[in-house]
Amino acid sequence: MAKLPVSVHPRVVIVGGGFAGTELAKKLSKASLQVVLIDKNNYYTFQPLLYQVATAGLNAPSIVYPYRKILEKGNDTFFRLAEVEAVDPVNRIIETSIGLVQYDYLVIATGATTNYYGNEQIEQHAIAMKSVEDALMLRNTIICNFEKALQVGDEEQLNSLMDFVIVGGGPTGVEIAGALSELRKHVFPKDYKELDFIKMDIHLIQSGDHLLKGMSHAASTEALQFLQEAGVQVWLNRRVKSFDGYTVLLDNGEKLITRTLIWAAGVTGAPIKGLDPACITSGNRLKVDVYNRVAGYENIFALGDIAEMITAENPDGYPMLAQPALQQGRLLGANLPKLIAGKPLKPFVYTDKGSLATIGRNKAVADVKIFNKEIRTQGYFAWLIWLFVHLFSIIGFKNRLLVFINWIWNYLSYDAVMRVIIGTKKENVPVEKVTDKVLV
Amino acid sequence: MAKLPVSVHPRVVIVGGGFAGTELAKKLSKASLQVVLIDKNNYYTFQPLLYQVATAGLNAPSIVYPYRKILEKGNDTFFRLAEVEAVDPVNRIIETSIGLVQYDYLVIATGATTNYYGNEQIEQHAIAMKSVEDALMLRNTIICNFEKALQVGDEEQLNSLMDFVIVGGGPTGVEIAGALSELRKHVFPKDYKELDFIKMDIHLIQSGDHLLKGMSHAASTEALQFLQEAGVQVWLNRRVKSFDGYTVLLDNGEKLITRTLIWAAGVTGAPIKGLDPACITSGNRLKVDVYNRVAGYENIFALGDIAEMITAENPDGYPMLAQPALQQGRLLGANLPKLIAGKPLKPFVYTDKGSLATIGRNKAVADVKIFNKEIRTQGYFAWLIWLFVHLFSIIGFKNRLLVFINWIWNYLSYDAVMRVIIGTKKENVPVEKVTDKVLV
Repeated sequence: MAKLPVSVHPRVVIVGGGFAGTELAKKLSKASLQVVLIDKNNYYTFQPLLYQVATAGLNAPSIVYPYRKILEKGNDTFFRLAEVEAVDPVNRIIETSIGLVQYDYLVIATGATTNYYGNEQIEQHAIAMKSVEDALMLRNTIICNFEKALQVGDEEQLNSLMDFVIVGGGPTGVEIAGALSELRKHVFPKDYKELDFIKMDIHLIQSGDHLLKGMSHAASTEALQFLQEAGVQVWLNRRVKSFDGYTVLLDNGEKLITRTLIWAAGVTGAPIKGLDPACITSGNRLKVDVYNRVAGYENIFALGDIAEMITAENPDGYPMLAQPALQQGRLLGANLPKLIAGKPLKPFVYTDKGSLATIGRNKAVADVKIFNKEIRTQGYFAWLIWLFVHLFSIIGFKNRLLVFINWIWNYLSYDAVMRVIIGTKKENVPVEKVTDKVLV
Repeated sequence: MAKLPVSVHPRVVIVGGGFAGTELAKKLSKASLQVVLIDKNNYYTFQPLLYQVATAGLNAPSIVYPYRKILEKGNDTFFRLAEVEAVDPVNRIIETSIGLVQYDYLVIATGATTNYYGNEQIEQHAIAMKSVEDALMLRNTIICNFEKALQVGDEEQLNSLMDFVIVGGGPTGVEIAGALSELRKHVFPKDYKELDFIKMDIHLIQSGDHLLKGMSHAASTEALQFLQEAGVQVWLNRRVKSFDGYTVLLDNGEKLITRTLIWAAGVTGAPIKGLDPACITSGNRLKVDVYNRVAGYENIFALGDIAEMITAENPDGYPMLAQPALQQGRLLGANLPKLIAGKPLKPFVYTDKGSLATIGRNKAVADVKIFNKEIRTQGYFAWLIWLFVHLFSIIGFKNRLLVFINWIWNYLSYDAVMRVIIGTKKENVPVEKVTDKVLV
């Protein structure tokens, strides 16, 4: 049994503590409701900076925050560390790894998972970029590759360790490619004097004909420009057909040799079992109305990446980004108490604050709205906007301070000092065993 | 083959980058020698603060530092990530996980490993406190225990999750016990409102009749006093006979129920295979002369915990602490170039700077020498000395700054915000499975 205190208030169970779920939980913790937040981690993750954890610029603890700390002040607010397995809408019960939980209102904010488009071989060998564990695994793998590279003689082996292939030309892919090129330029040559970093190739593979789909033409062309100046090899209109942990096969038959394939090529919804198939879209998301109510249910809601809200004004739904999630969480936080009080609800209206992507030191692209003024800028000013926006989106003053100090430090020292191997790494095809006993 | 550049200089291979090995490598990187530091991690660990990582006060990256960064400036200085398997003194070769390495001078600074006194059952179920991975595992285990405690009904199960047994009354044991009592008092009750922390027991088991063996009588009695005031149950003159992951059996037949046994009961040497048994002591350490030269060898040295230096003035050898290790590393750094230049060597003379242990907020015990004045103090002033000494022993200005900010923050907020579960945890006897489907 999942032990939870009995309450005089109706119980709202929120599944998933991403941008949407956390924002909602914070809002509702002040209302006269019993709030139960369930997540498989005990900490909130600020996903936009995962790539900096992966590239040794930040340490993981400074971009995460314990849920229990976030919800501390709520008197009838609870957190449970659990995986949700299924929902029984008729009896208003969810099945979790810690037992059954009764709900009056259920909010599904499970977000999206990495989409490998059914290719299990790629899923097995690639590294995704959705969680802190992913980011740390990538960091450990990158560093171990260079440590191993010091030991191999054979050129192809060397390339397989020193080359990196990133799949997906969205913000994550672009930002990782940029960060890797910075490490190649400023950090790794100091660490590995014996290696020739001319040999380190960074490939970015994008299925479409431009980067940063969804951003302005200026943004995508400038991003491409910046990456190419940084020596990143960008392949447009290409798809990865297979990856066995060593050879990447592209759709045009070309091959790339690498042990490290970073998969940032797309996400898909992850709905909970037990819901009426009629409410699930082709993209595995949940159809919701303008109040984020899941189609066909009175007391089940969906927020953020998992929710697909299609209206006349907005036939394609909203992008799977932080802003729609945050805004939907905030609105439902206001609507739920109204619903319970029998007051009319406010429909969702999306305020597009624009998007940003950084390509490393002093370089970013920005399509933003500031005081309702559309600003499209690339380069240094965009980079400052990026820094500002991200710094102030981090939860917890201390984390913000620590990230700020790290950024200043890394900027001035051209360094990324978090290059320590702690935890697991990806072991693809083993590096050629040491056979000869020749000494050098 | 372990690829290393050919050098005109003699090659010094240092095995182990603890206090001694790192200090030596830093010193020698300025000499006309080829220096090769080998360690199984790619980062230096500031061990005295491991317990704060374990108790969520600090994050791991702020007490570690990449070796490659430490050795950056040396032109003929190299780091290799490897495990050393054996030494062949005749041919001056060591066998490592990355192949054979030739040396002209070998320095063994492999430190000490946790001593389970041959009890494999305890080794399997206990958590040690020697590495960052240990500390993170303990942190994850502690937090997971409380998350599980929310789900169990049975009283004994609850105790097994909420109680902690620490074995060993040295600085590590005392400091962990103190930190846990702080968490019980200030942090956990806020996080787990549903749990009654009167039920959380912290047991400290010490085989001898006083704590902090090697420190003054005043220090040990005050430490005991402080711990008892903090509600830690200290058991003197007790030994642990067995631990199966659930039940701790003491030598007097008493039993304690816990899933978390923290083993800080002693260390033992870890010498490399291939050395003449005649130079290995009963405590698995290496006999060295006053120049840290291993008995019977001209070009093999041992430093720190692994070295046992016994002289007329010093019949018991030096304590296995940071100070002897640092001082021996520093001295050998000066002696090796002299040896090569055929100049007379300086014998080791230990400067005892005293010892410190903290028992939590505002409380520590100190037997220290300041300007050659013996100072024995307990309480607030000792705590300030502890803070000062540890802060300035941390490598890297940035780490020092981050630790400082964290300490100020935790002190003012009575908080320890690093309580996130990232990485592995200890799974002892599984928590009673959820059977009944009753809802609460």
